[in-house]
Amino acid sequence: MKTILKGRTREVIINSDGPVIIIGESINPTRRKKLVSTLQEGNFEYVLELAGNQIKAGADVLDVNVGFPGVDDEKLLPETVKQLQSRYDIPLCLDSPNPKAIEAALKVAEGKCLINSVNGEEASMKAFLPIAKDFGAAIIGLCMDEEGIIHDPEKRLAIAEKIINRAVKTGIKAEDVIVDPLAMAVSADPNACLVTLETIRLVHQKLGHNITQGASNISFGLPDRESLNAAYMMMSIYNGLTCPIANPEKITAAVRAADLVLGRDDFAVRFVEYFQSHQ
Amino acid sequence: MKTILKGRTREVIINSDGPVIIIGESINPTRRKKLVSTLQEGNFEYVLELAGNQIKAGADVLDVNVGFPGVDDEKLLPETVKQLQSRYDIPLCLDSPNPKAIEAALKVAEGKCLINSVNGEEASMKAFLPIAKDFGAAIIGLCMDEEGIIHDPEKRLAIAEKIINRAVKTGIKAEDVIVDPLAMAVSADPNACLVTLETIRLVHQKLGHNITQGASNISFGLPDRESLNAAYMMMSIYNGLTCPIANPEKITAAVRAADLVLGRDDFAVRFVEYFQSHQ
Repeated sequence: MKTILKGRTREVIINSDGPVIIIGESINPTRRKKLVSTLQEGNFEYVLELAGNQIKAGADVLDVNVGFPGVDDEKLLPETVKQLQSRYDIPLCLDSPNPKAIEAALKVAEGKCLINSVNGEEASMKAFLPIAKDFGAAIIGLCMDEEGIIHDPEKRLAIAEKIINRAVKTGIKAEDVIVDPLAMAVSADPNACLVTLETIRLVHQKLGHNITQGASNISFGLPDRESLNAAYMMMSIYNGLTCPIANPEKITAAVRAADLVLGRDDFAVRFVEYFQSHQ
Repeated sequence: MKTILKGRTREVIINSDGPVIIIGESINPTRRKKLVSTLQEGNFEYVLELAGNQIKAGADVLDVNVGFPGVDDEKLLPETVKQLQSRYDIPLCLDSPNPKAIEAALKVAEGKCLINSVNGEEASMKAFLPIAKDFGAAIIGLCMDEEGIIHDPEKRLAIAEKIINRAVKTGIKAEDVIVDPLAMAVSADPNACLVTLETIRLVHQKLGHNITQGASNISFGLPDRESLNAAYMMMSIYNGLTCPIANPEKITAAVRAADLVLGRDDFAVRFVEYFQSHQ
């Protein structure tokens, strides 16, 4: 299955058979005070710098989250999108819990964006799916609903199916729903990663959809997060993860290695290219 | 299933449900001229240094290979074993294609060793299995036979079964056969790792035996071997690899991360301990 995203002109194809597409996570105010302070001043240089660094490091798509306390993201999200698209021709993943901010951003965005995110709750599907339909955007579907986050891969799979079916009924193409199986902190629950890895396997084998996740969450509260994130990322990719939201400056070498190991990089072209330009 | 190895007094349990046990690969003359020259001089300080460094870095068992052109390994292997056991209380994996060298080493070795290796060829089983039986050693069974190395996971599984059955007939306990699914260079064949990963999955699910592999082979001829080896190792562990032969100085952090991700390290005790003692 193929999900196509677009920047101003550039097309990115996410294929459920790989290779892996990296959605850069760094435009996010969490633990980035400088992003908040510069955006509050109406200064976009830092957000553009974060974008440029991620693209250089291997990001194919950029997540854009400008949510912080007190922000008017119905103004700030579209303005950030305009600034990013004026400098970079890369598809964007619009990340906000506020459907009005997403809608305002889609109004000014060129190309075809990804919306992050809808979940299986009635209110969420009702709010986001029509917007995705109207603007021809793809959408991330989180495997949670009114019952919360359930530690059962089969139930998470069922929620993914529910969101996909509802999206198709709304007029969205099935392949434009990317499933997020929900990566949770392993420090809180020793089985957290196992549940998500099994959900990835089920979604990949039974639905065949593209799969994303905020893969850096799993190491929350632990040291050496890089080793943990990489270990989990490798296993997730093996099971069917195709477009993680992650920090390309930390993970691209491992992702290129995974693609090569999985027979998706003939003659090691992409792996060697990345090595040569980043050593 | 549990395979128990022993040093002079120390017992190492390899459990097919994990956690991962690392067999240190560094006592091997390949690309280690200093090992050859010191051993030729009858000087064991360097081999002892290699052993100590690997133990410090997280090795639970040490592979001992002293094969180089012109060597009399029927003398050198037992002598090296004695030297290692006089300093370190760690189980050894005796690595030689010469059954007489293995037998000579087992005669002087204390505890319970692992023999590396037998394969599915009649001549190999005939030579090594009686020795393993006589000395109560465990043995690594390579998934290849008279037909060579076949790129078919089901056929490799069948060879593993053949070796196990023959070992049991010889009087060796089933759990004392550790299967090696054969990791091959991905530079030579883009599907090499996929075939081995699937073999690991099959052996783990259908036979339940412990599984080893020389996991550093896969990156032969490529740059950034560390990223490739780690990616492949993570996927292998997910599928059922329990006792890789690898370089602990490069791979232990990733292995500890894998165990934590897979729910085998409650409260992250081993992961944090390794991090604190190696940062």
